[in-house]
Amino acid sequence: MKLIPSLIWSPLLWVLLAQEPPRPPAPEPPVRSPEVHPDRRVTFRLRGPEVREVKLNASWWAGEKSFSRNQEGLWSLTIGPLAPEIYNYTYSIDGVTTIDPHNPAVKTGVRAASSVLEVPGDSPAIYDLGEVPHGAVHIRYYRSRAIGGTRRVHVYTPPSYPAGNKRYPVLYLLHGAGDDDSGWMAIGRANLILDNLIAEGRAQEMLVVMPFGHVPGLADPRTSWEEQNRLIERDLIGDLIPFIESAYRVRRDAASRAIAGLSMGGGQAARIGLGNLEVFRWVGMFSAAVGQPASSEALQRFLAEPEKSNRALRLLWIGCGKDDFLIKPNEEFVALLDSQGIRHTWRLTEGDHSWPVWRRYLAELTPLLFR
Amino acid sequence: MKLIPSLIWSPLLWVLLAQEPPRPPAPEPPVRSPEVHPDRRVTFRLRGPEVREVKLNASWWAGEKSFSRNQEGLWSLTIGPLAPEIYNYTYSIDGVTTIDPHNPAVKTGVRAASSVLEVPGDSPAIYDLGEVPHGAVHIRYYRSRAIGGTRRVHVYTPPSYPAGNKRYPVLYLLHGAGDDDSGWMAIGRANLILDNLIAEGRAQEMLVVMPFGHVPGLADPRTSWEEQNRLIERDLIGDLIPFIESAYRVRRDAASRAIAGLSMGGGQAARIGLGNLEVFRWVGMFSAAVGQPASSEALQRFLAEPEKSNRALRLLWIGCGKDDFLIKPNEEFVALLDSQGIRHTWRLTEGDHSWPVWRRYLAELTPLLFR
Repeated sequence: MKLIPSLIWSPLLWVLLAQEPPRPPAPEPPVRSPEVHPDRRVTFRLRGPEVREVKLNASWWAGEKSFSRNQEGLWSLTIGPLAPEIYNYTYSIDGVTTIDPHNPAVKTGVRAASSVLEVPGDSPAIYDLGEVPHGAVHIRYYRSRAIGGTRRVHVYTPPSYPAGNKRYPVLYLLHGAGDDDSGWMAIGRANLILDNLIAEGRAQEMLVVMPFGHVPGLADPRTSWEEQNRLIERDLIGDLIPFIESAYRVRRDAASRAIAGLSMGGGQAARIGLGNLEVFRWVGMFSAAVGQPASSEALQRFLAEPEKSNRALRLLWIGCGKDDFLIKPNEEFVALLDSQGIRHTWRLTEGDHSWPVWRRYLAELTPLLFR
Repeated sequence: MKLIPSLIWSPLLWVLLAQEPPRPPAPEPPVRSPEVHPDRRVTFRLRGPEVREVKLNASWWAGEKSFSRNQEGLWSLTIGPLAPEIYNYTYSIDGVTTIDPHNPAVKTGVRAASSVLEVPGDSPAIYDLGEVPHGAVHIRYYRSRAIGGTRRVHVYTPPSYPAGNKRYPVLYLLHGAGDDDSGWMAIGRANLILDNLIAEGRAQEMLVVMPFGHVPGLADPRTSWEEQNRLIERDLIGDLIPFIESAYRVRRDAASRAIAGLSMGGGQAARIGLGNLEVFRWVGMFSAAVGQPASSEALQRFLAEPEKSNRALRLLWIGCGKDDFLIKPNEEFVALLDSQGIRHTWRLTEGDHSWPVWRRYLAELTPLLFR
């Protein structure tokens, strides 16, 4: 390193140069967890010399499995090989369910956090960060008269946005119970899925608006499901859509608005979308919590007037996994649509109530929209 | 609830209406942790009947404290009253350091996650979500030739953006070691602080660009500090600034660019800002890891040529808490500036190496910028 001559004699500079870069107090040497091996087996670890029992909770993709302990108190468990995918899991440490403390990849929401494991495949997945043009995700705040106060929303804009005077169609995309408006980006990878589909020419350029689906004071959404969904509908129709349509260059006709959601958000999408066909013409239900929307009068009207509904609807897309705990109400809802003669696309797929299914559904639904 | 007549006799509808809303398998009744009492004492809890020892790790604001266990295996600890603030903490559960499993508020980064406690005050804090016009935070991706690959950056745009042909000044705001580009928003509340300061007329409208300060393959930044900071400088000057200045309506003169950062990012801000006064005229160092920038030739030149440096610099703002483990190198750096006759603002404050200090520093620095 060359020194500037006039500074060489400065004792203060030498103090600075001589010292090591300042460091926080040294932590224990890092534990690598999870470690994905080349054959896609995965090793989970925990440093816990004082711990008596460690388990992996990964019910749907690996079950519940116990770790074993070595002499130094390092616990480990190897499973797989696993299919390339993004998985959620937790640990049970002496009976306490929590994240893997060594893994910085954490999925947060309004309920307890979980850890995230990504197993890469040999070729890029549709949700990978590709070498393609990227859109942006905007974190915005808007006033909600329906719910009161200021609410946060995530908005995906496609790579070309804003292009001259072009106006874009909009997909409203709703999350599940316990999650928040960051979920479809953070773990659902909706922005990267759209980037990749748009780059391949498979999806239209569209905005994706990802609102927050819970309301204040209803921390446990199961207790006030009906009231919450009524408020979310009023907020979305009366506050959020006007905000989006004033803040972004978007189309304002029903044929240019879609609504879809997963689980609780799938129920909300059915209630809000099918109950307001003057606002939305495209509806997607992913593993939808479909029982409660039948209590909406507007949704009953949708079911009772099939000819009118069929005229208005451009697409009603319903997907559910064979192993999903919501498969029965979804099959019943589809049977009801059949009995009423309401057109729909029904996808009974592999999988259960989890993000791998919903990422695939988003990649399957969005190419069909706004055609 | 009124039913649409034509549907009343549909047995399928009755199946749907009769059933409870579908619910995930019932979890245990929720444990409230942390609970902030009206007097600002705080109770932490953990359900752990099989656990033998629980501690709170909150070294700087509450020390390390042990929980006590009741007969049902519910552990709890009450501390305080605490000053209104946002605090980070972890639990030690049978010797394992991890988050509070019952608290959904989690701060993530590239190192282990921590839990977040917010103690509200009687009046709104500068970092609170106020009833003021809100800017947006954009999550963007750009190509980095310096580092290789695609990198993510968070960009705050103020409430008026974009206003006609107005061009805005830009603050580049860097995070600390182990964090990522979401940190200054997620826990630093930079967007809400700017919203509030702008609404009060105390800060100029500006963009705040929050890049990611680590490089791939250097997972532990302490091992390759020098190389990382060289790459981050090349990326910021050669890739990120051109991206921002092509994607946003911003001013492109050095007097309209500021750079500031905390800890590792404070060292980067010194190296990049003071070493490139043709690019930046405003520099902020918060609890800066200031030892290593002295190894930059450009920074030595800055120190060796005080008249030239004083002519170029609009502001060099340095803050450090009395209880910060980096106080000594910061005081030495300030003494070196004094000995060289380089103008600066030195704020020796209460506090240590933690976010409450850095949020205050941001609220103190930004009103001084671009005046």
